[in-house]
Parts: sequence; structure tokens; C-alpha cells
Amino acid sequence: MKKLYPNKDAGTLKSDSPIHRFTDSPGSIFFNKVTILGVGLIGASFALALKKRGLCRHIAGYGRKENNLKKALGMNIIDSFDIDASKACADSDLILFAIPVGCFTETAKKINGSLKKGAIVTDVGSVKGKLVRDMEALMPEDVSFVGGHPIAGSDRMGIDTAAADLFIGARCILTPTEKTDKTALKKIAGLWESFGSKVSTLDAEEHDRIYAAVSHLPHLIAYAIVNTVDEINNSYLGYAGNGFKDTTRIAASSPELWRDISLMNRDNILEFIALFKKNLDSLSGYLKTANSEALEKEFKKAKALREDVR
Amino acid sequence: MKKLYPNKDAGTLKSDSPIHRFTDSPGSIFFNKVTILGVGLIGASFALALKKRGLCRHIAGYGRKENNLKKALGMNIIDSFDIDASKACADSDLILFAIPVGCFTETAKKINGSLKKGAIVTDVGSVKGKLVRDMEALMPEDVSFVGGHPIAGSDRMGIDTAAADLFIGARCILTPTEKTDKTALKKIAGLWESFGSKVSTLDAEEHDRIYAAVSHLPHLIAYAIVNTVDEINNSYLGYAGNGFKDTTRIAASSPELWRDISLMNRDNILEFIALFKKNLDSLSGYLKTANSEALEKEFKKAKALREDVR
Repeated sequence: MKKLYPNKDAGTLKSDSPIHRFTDSPGSIFFNKVTILGVGLIGASFALALKKRGLCRHIAGYGRKENNLKKALGMNIIDSFDIDASKACADSDLILFAIPVGCFTETAKKINGSLKKGAIVTDVGSVKGKLVRDMEALMPEDVSFVGGHPIAGSDRMGIDTAAADLFIGARCILTPTEKTDKTALKKIAGLWESFGSKVSTLDAEEHDRIYAAVSHLPHLIAYAIVNTVDEINNSYLGYAGNGFKDTTRIAASSPELWRDISLMNRDNILEFIALFKKNLDSLSGYLKTANSEALEKEFKKAKALREDVR
Repeated sequence: MKKLYPNKDAGTLKSDSPIHRFTDSPGSIFFNKVTILGVGLIGASFALALKKRGLCRHIAGYGRKENNLKKALGMNIIDSFDIDASKACADSDLILFAIPVGCFTETAKKINGSLKKGAIVTDVGSVKGKLVRDMEALMPEDVSFVGGHPIAGSDRMGIDTAAADLFIGARCILTPTEKTDKTALKKIAGLWESFGSKVSTLDAEEHDRIYAAVSHLPHLIAYAIVNTVDEINNSYLGYAGNGFKDTTRIAASSPELWRDISLMNRDNILEFIALFKKNLDSLSGYLKTANSEALEKEFKKAKALREDVR
């Protein structure tokens, strides 16, 4: 993992390791107008976090569902809204993409004519890689793009579950490229740090490999487990205990979001599905030959690894 | 699902449905001496539940680790112990098998010479089927066996996490056969009901198919996911968020217990692994062809099914 200002003593970053702070005074960050594109769980929580810390004067919302925007306005999550993305972004100092990743470039094309000089555009998408380069290419010359991914998703959705403190203690990955403006990067990092997040940076392609493994693969598997039990016998689902519930919790995640994420990161995901099937085939082989020792060894290995994940 | 006294209006049993009570006065159940074979999470919680409700006079413990038995004695979970299973069972009115299922028949052979006339032997194993018939065959003529499976397992293990209230609200499946003594069945059902469990009965073979689908398959998959990410890049595990943690929580379960369960139910598990792979292959196919509609349809189906599991 790369850091902007590497701490030579830090070694490999563990979830509980102290993270270098990008800014010494994150409180000095202030945006006059912020636009949230997509006022769902993450977008609304971002807005609430900004407001709680007094980091902006006005938050404009944009989304496809006017009812949701009206509700967000009523809940004081946003201060105004527009169902025209371009209008919602006018005069904004910070624009957050919190819509499904499949809509990013199309929306960037709609707004890039109305972006204020010096504005920063950032996002919370679960896929980076090519998407970051595409977004950079769509920005006007005087607008900076900073790719971001707070690890705070949930099977819960929508503004009713949004919370100003959602990001406290959560990892937030930023994916700067050689084109990224250093000042903009520092501002966005400082913003997430002021929200309580543990900020670090990753190469955008490396980010996509990591999250294909620890997030996108498990999501596809969870969806497949539920549909498999349904195929075996739908009534069996009524017997599920906590193990099943935990394992498949993320199968209740947004189909639309995960459709986009899966497709945009499909090369990595397909590679890892093949590896996963190989591992599952090993276990099947041990079952077939009643290889009790090999089975226990694999389980022990997984148990030790899993217990190290905190 | 079969019930002893079916309620004609009940329809399909859902987790939140009212369950017919086997006994009107579970408080009338009392055992002079109870022996717990295997004083781990479930065995110790069973002992604590008995004590909390005053349903026995004396609890003897048996296990392979004397230190653990001493600890259980010190914690007042058991009142005596013996590292000789046969001696621990002498004079007992109720014997609970809470050891790994792979040790059941071997231990049954050791104790069946010392069982008291009229004693009831029951268990908490995650596998029933052939094991129930094997256990029945090993019982002396005047001893009853009642197969049981409380759905209260956890990746947590050992007596430190045991609790008298562990079974409150949990489903408990009993698997009577044509040989099962009706009075013994009623007593065991009443016991679990007095612990707060929702008791129902299932054919032992049907039980194994159900739990191969909703428990054993997910366990093997969770082990395989963790080992796959380790194979891809061990450092990626440090980036795991809540989705990964939930999905793989059961990979921290006891390797020994799950080795036994997997092997004893391997025909069902192998059949379902094949079905799961077919479902995962469908998703891979949709990814390869970028079939966004089919992908979203599968995700939507899984989401709706999963949201129905409570």
C-alpha cells in the first residue's frame, strides 16, 4: 500500500495500524457548495458527516428519484436539489459521485460543461481502475478528479439508514494517478480523516484486484448460495440459522449497484471465481476420498487466516 | 416439516411461526443425574440451561481435556467429571452427546454397558440420518435414543462463551424414528421448550438434506473463500470490510467439528456443491457476455429470497 507520506516504520498496513494523517488540521477544510450525485446510504451519510462537522455552507442533491430528493431535503440532509445533474453541480466546489458506477461517465459528460473552475470531483465507487482514467479524461482542465472508495457499504440501502458517523473507523481508499492534483488529493484525504476514516492510497488497478477478492467475489458467491438453496428446495430457507444468515447477508445488497460493479471489474472477478472453484474442488475431492486429514488441514488454515481478519 | 401433534392451520413452518408445544407443563420435567459428553459451547450451555431452570440434581461432565473439565467444575457448569465416559454415565437419567459427531458411535460403544435402565440418550449433532440409526442400534433395549439438533452453533467455541440463555428463540430439530420411545421424545421436546427453543421434528434423512443446503454447504464455501483470498495475495485479507467478515465468519468454526460433519453428510454436500457451482457458472457466464439484465435478474431473485430469511 502506498501512502502519500510513507511512515518508514509502519510496515504492512493492518486494519488496526495507526494510519498516517494526510492533514494536520482537517478542520481547515471548508467548501462553500457541495453537490451529492446520488443521495443513498453513502451519499446521504457523506452529506450528514459534512454538516455535523460544519465543513460546508450548502449541499445540493441530485438523483433520479425526485421523491427521494424531497425526502432528503425534508430530513435536512441536503439544502436544495435538482433532477438535472448539470444544474445541481453549478457553482459547486466539491462534487461527489455516489450513484451506481455504471452511470459515472454518462453523468460526467452531462455535468462537465457546468463545473466551476477549481472544483474537485470525487467519488465513492467500489470500482476504480479504468473508471478513474475515464473520469479524469472527462474533467475540464481546471477541475481535479480524486478517486475514492470508503469501505462502509452495507446490504442496507437508502437515506433512512444514513448516519453522520457511518465512516468513523472505516477504511477509505484513495486512488491518485500521475494526473491527480496534489492539493485536491490532500483536501479529499483530510475530509475523510475529519469524518473519522482511516485513509490510505492504492494504485487504481491494484484496488480493483484487492476488492475483486475480498468483496466482489464474496458478493457473487452469496447471491449464488441463496439461489442454489432456492433451487434445491425453497422451503429449506426457512431452516436457516445464523451461519447461513451471516454468509448470505450481502445477497440482500442492491442488485443495480452490484450488477455495475461486477461488470466493471469482471476480468478480475472471473479470474478469482476460477481460483475459488479450484479451492472448492479440492475440498470436494477430500470429501469424495474421505480424506479427513486434508480436510481438517484446509479448515484449520482458513480458521487461522479468518481469525486474523479484524 | 412434521410435528408430533400437527396444527392443521399452521401451514409451512416459518421461523417466526408459533410452534406447537409438545408439553403443557415443561416444568414437570426433572432428571436426577445428567451427563454431558463434551463440555464445549453447546454442552456447557445445555448444563447451564438445566441448572438455571432447576431441572436436575447433578450434572456430570466428560471430555478428553481434563483441564477443560476442571475449569467447567470451577465455573459450576458441572458438579463432577470423569475422563472415563462409561463412569461419567453411570446412574445417569439423561446423557447428552455434545462431542464431535465423528466420535459418537465409538463413545456409545464405551458407555452402553453402564447405562441405567430407563435412561434417555440424546444429542446435539449437526448430522442425523445414518448416525441416528447407528446410535439407536447401539442402545441397550431399555434405553431410549432421541436425535436432536439445536440450531445454535457459532464460530465461537468453548465454555467461556456458554450461556444458559443460548437456546432462547433458537430452533431445535428432533428426529424421531419408528423406534423412538414416545415418552422419551416428549420429555426431550419439553426440555428444549423449557430452554426457550422452538421445537419441531424432521425425518433424520430430510434433516441432513436441509442442513447440507443451509449450513454445511455455506461452511465449506466460507472455508474456500478465505483460502482463495490467501492464495491470491495474503495481504489482501487486510483490506476486508464487513461484507467479507460476515460471509466468512463461519470459517472460524471448529475444524474438527466441521471435518466430521462434512464427512458424515458428504453425499448431500457433494450433490449441493455441484448445484452451487452450476449457479456460480451461470453468473460467470453472464459476466463473460456482459449480460447485464440476466445478472441483475439473478441478484434481484437472491435479494428477495434472502430478505425473506429472518
